[in-house]
Amino acid sequence: MQPRVDLISLGVRSVEASRSFYADGLGWRIHREVPGEVVFIQANHGLILSLWDAARMQAEAGTSAPAGVPCITLSHNLASTAEVDWVMAEAEAAGATIVAAPKTQPWGGYTGYFADPDGFRWEVAYNPTWAVDDAGRVSL
Amino acid sequence: MQPRVDLISLGVRSVEASRSFYADGLGWRIHREVPGEVVFIQANHGLILSLWDAARMQAEAGTSAPAGVPCITLSHNLASTAEVDWVMAEAEAAGATIVAAPKTQPWGGYTGYFADPDGFRWEVAYNPTWAVDDAGRVSL
Repeated sequence: MQPRVDLISLGVRSVEASRSFYADGLGWRIHREVPGEVVFIQANHGLILSLWDAARMQAEAGTSAPAGVPCITLSHNLASTAEVDWVMAEAEAAGATIVAAPKTQPWGGYTGYFADPDGFRWEVAYNPTWAVDDAGRVSL
Repeated sequence: MQPRVDLISLGVRSVEASRSFYADGLGWRIHREVPGEVVFIQANHGLILSLWDAARMQAEAGTSAPAGVPCITLSHNLASTAEVDWVMAEAEAAGATIVAAPKTQPWGGYTGYFADPDGFRWEVAYNPTWAVDDAGRVSL
């Protein structure tokens, strides 16, 4: 597994309140959004910051984060479903807690979740619409 | 303020346990470390993942994260102390909670902290040793 973060998801109580703060308050440009569900903002070369309704975010992983563990996920994107399976097995062998075995998601991706020794969650994902150009601009 | 994350800090209970998981288990290369305090891993173009002793991390911000709020910080780096002051004022005007006013840190940087509407913490930082080359490699 390569050390790489492609997407940072913050689970937020109100997508509208977050949108207002980041886009209207700080003036950050929105890359893409599903109103009331999620806002994507490009946050560095090949990096997306996602402000995601916390309940929907936890539903996708299938379980809520344990008490005291942040509603945040760092995503690691791969080029195929087979690579997702392989990396999830590698993480488990390294001692990760498997939060959710990989499965196809309603949005078309194939994702699994593991937690590190502190419970911080990683999403291991094949996202067929994810692309990064030479300048670091993400398409998703 | 530009939308940009330069560094993701995870507050960990044991730096040794995190190091073992990420470096030995997942095979991730360590960029730089202070044994028992912090491990830095390059995690994308111009992006560092920091596994930081949670107590030290919270001490630098001056206050612990409220219950239920993740011990995680997203860092936004700037080119001068004046820019840090300006961006912290901009964040406050946008409705951010000021966690810590900017000050010079023992490691030589000048940093302030604010929290977004969900309590997620941002570090606004001038780090005189931070540099990113054209290939995205970080020096710190």
